[in-house]
Amino acid sequence: MATLEFDGKSYLDGRASDPREIGWMRGAPPPADKRITFESDAFYDFPQIRWTLSHARELLATANVWRGRASPSHFERNDKTSDIDALAFTDMNGRARRFDEALPDTYTDGMVVLHRGRIVYERYLGALEAHLPHSCFSITKSYAATLTAAFVHEGVLDDKKTIPHYVPELRGSAFEDATLRQVMDMQTGLAYTEAYADPTSSIWEYARASGLRPRPAGYSGATTCSDYLRKVAKEGAHGEAFAYKTVNTEVMAWVLARTTGRPFTQLLHERLWSPLGCEEDAYIVVDPAGMPMAGGGLSASLRDLARFGELMRREGDWNGKQVIPSTVVYDVSKGDSPAKFAKAGYTLLPGYSYRSMWWVTHNEFDAFEARGIHGQRLYVAPKAEMVVARFASHPVAASSANDPITLPQLLALGRMLRE
Amino acid sequence: MATLEFDGKSYLDGRASDPREIGWMRGAPPPADKRITFESDAFYDFPQIRWTLSHARELLATANVWRGRASPSHFERNDKTSDIDALAFTDMNGRARRFDEALPDTYTDGMVVLHRGRIVYERYLGALEAHLPHSCFSITKSYAATLTAAFVHEGVLDDKKTIPHYVPELRGSAFEDATLRQVMDMQTGLAYTEAYADPTSSIWEYARASGLRPRPAGYSGATTCSDYLRKVAKEGAHGEAFAYKTVNTEVMAWVLARTTGRPFTQLLHERLWSPLGCEEDAYIVVDPAGMPMAGGGLSASLRDLARFGELMRREGDWNGKQVIPSTVVYDVSKGDSPAKFAKAGYTLLPGYSYRSMWWVTHNEFDAFEARGIHGQRLYVAPKAEMVVARFASHPVAASSANDPITLPQLLALGRMLRE
Repeated sequence: MATLEFDGKSYLDGRASDPREIGWMRGAPPPADKRITFESDAFYDFPQIRWTLSHARELLATANVWRGRASPSHFERNDKTSDIDALAFTDMNGRARRFDEALPDTYTDGMVVLHRGRIVYERYLGALEAHLPHSCFSITKSYAATLTAAFVHEGVLDDKKTIPHYVPELRGSAFEDATLRQVMDMQTGLAYTEAYADPTSSIWEYARASGLRPRPAGYSGATTCSDYLRKVAKEGAHGEAFAYKTVNTEVMAWVLARTTGRPFTQLLHERLWSPLGCEEDAYIVVDPAGMPMAGGGLSASLRDLARFGELMRREGDWNGKQVIPSTVVYDVSKGDSPAKFAKAGYTLLPGYSYRSMWWVTHNEFDAFEARGIHGQRLYVAPKAEMVVARFASHPVAASSANDPITLPQLLALGRMLRE
Repeated sequence: MATLEFDGKSYLDGRASDPREIGWMRGAPPPADKRITFESDAFYDFPQIRWTLSHARELLATANVWRGRASPSHFERNDKTSDIDALAFTDMNGRARRFDEALPDTYTDGMVVLHRGRIVYERYLGALEAHLPHSCFSITKSYAATLTAAFVHEGVLDDKKTIPHYVPELRGSAFEDATLRQVMDMQTGLAYTEAYADPTSSIWEYARASGLRPRPAGYSGATTCSDYLRKVAKEGAHGEAFAYKTVNTEVMAWVLARTTGRPFTQLLHERLWSPLGCEEDAYIVVDPAGMPMAGGGLSASLRDLARFGELMRREGDWNGKQVIPSTVVYDVSKGDSPAKFAKAGYTLLPGYSYRSMWWVTHNEFDAFEARGIHGQRLYVAPKAEMVVARFASHPVAASSANDPITLPQLLALGRMLRE
């Protein structure tokens, strides 16, 4: 069996871990050794994850994001598959690669590339199909913060206000003196860690409270997401450094839902899925109180993810309708302080900043990215007139495991299309 | 508060129990006394059920039934709302009623009436909206058996064969010497009871094994639906009497999935949702092994349910395409033995029979019904050229609680439209 190594551990490679080949969840019923269940708590383990990310709703409680009744918006096509497949680039470790070979090496489940709004490349691998929603993980955050920024622009929310102005229940937590803007930019000082490889990390009580993971016998932690958020304590100061912590998004989404009186699913429908003419319903994991998990719970089809990227590339305009205010998109694209970002120590992302839950490259394309664990990516590159939507099921959660291939791959692609 | 009585118990009436008025699951997060959770095991209790049946996926793991990419099929309209609302009829207890008043009195969540294929009446109440899938409960059985009968017609299945021919794992169970046809017509002798009001009824281990209900601490029963089915023992003889037991449907669906190599969700997509041009995706609850629950797990939109009824009224023809063989529909509509049905003791259903998981009235319309607990109903009345699709969230599971109103109501409606 062909394998790849990450952090000294060996994993089946992209082809050998293909969930169709392994036969996960095939059969009536699937044989015991090919079953993926919620209770086992192994559904995000590798290689099971290669099936799970295209089937999350079959394990978890979810709420629908309705596409509406209109016909889907049409994508023009300008197929460049063979040119793109053959594109050569050098990864961050100095290894020469071809674009098509990089797909299995990043455990890609699907990729759509738009250039000037046309589909130039579209591939589905593993368990993914064009109509199937795939886990977006933290790309969900970029959806949520873009909507939040729109409500700030409209005056419904004031991002200079502190969180308890909107959600008084968060008095006494770390968020008592955090402004909405600090939360939107993840510049909060929180006694909270997000280390997926560490079983004692705060991320696990967050996940168990929210119903994202089974609770061990005798579990005595919080039992809803919002109850967990109230327990998060302050550590250090707000406003000084970027520190990536998912609970910020959940707090922001709580503010959004409380203030608008509408669930996140409804806002996604009204503000994005319906106006963009998305072609499939999306869905989002809900916690035991029914709250949609804005920190990472969304599953969407790949083309619908690409539509969101294209909306951002077009500065919020969709066929003449201003779906998201252009100033919101401009504010994201110009980014925030690279100095504050640098304090977080992302050595693979020099010069980046983080704004409204987008990762801003400050590169030659003025690109900004939505990023989710295990390889989810929405790359918006205005100066290359390019949008790349990619779903993946990489064995390693952290994007640092795929960035050494992904970032040079997308840079080479943008340069090719720009010519 | 206005109340209604059933079996000596008092319940809020249809208007007072409106879930929008009570405010279930409203707020961010909903207040504790307005929350409906899976863990509480109260989600099918009244009045919570009035919310739950339009939101089952928010509590349970589900698999999608894809509608496909084509535009939805169009319904012509010939609105008769005011005539139908004013229709007078007498219920089985001799009480004079109006059609529109009967809706809240049967806890109706939505009703679509087709006459000659046109929508003449369409109402949504409670938590239901036109695009929202609603629990079909045992109407799911009629979908599953109609597909199974089609595969029998095509020679893929032989309904004279005994179950272990297709599913050897069921040797040693009650199904060892049951034919597929006996299972399809629920003429099996099983040591299994389906008494929702009795906490010791077999239905509860079935539900807990299948993940439909939370498992009490120390639960030691089966942990998947198919493991439960293997435990069902024989009691009495097969082929002698109709006895309504949901496990028959799960066995039939197991045969169907094993033989076709395709999950029930995929068959529903290929054979019904896509060819009928359904307008919304449906979904179905899956058990912990990922098996769709064919006995009662489907949620569909009301108009899509009406499309299925209209397909049956048109003898399987949909705009010139034979979607279901006409002989399958004819076989359902002519029914089975009323004498075998009579043994089951349904005093409100004199002269009925049961065929391929449809309830056959043998009445003046040659009507046949798909019936689900808590008031789900699909009434196909060929000689009135009428189809009625109704969703409800009645406090009492058994259809006998709403039949005294529903059956005269539909008879009066058919007579009015036939004129």
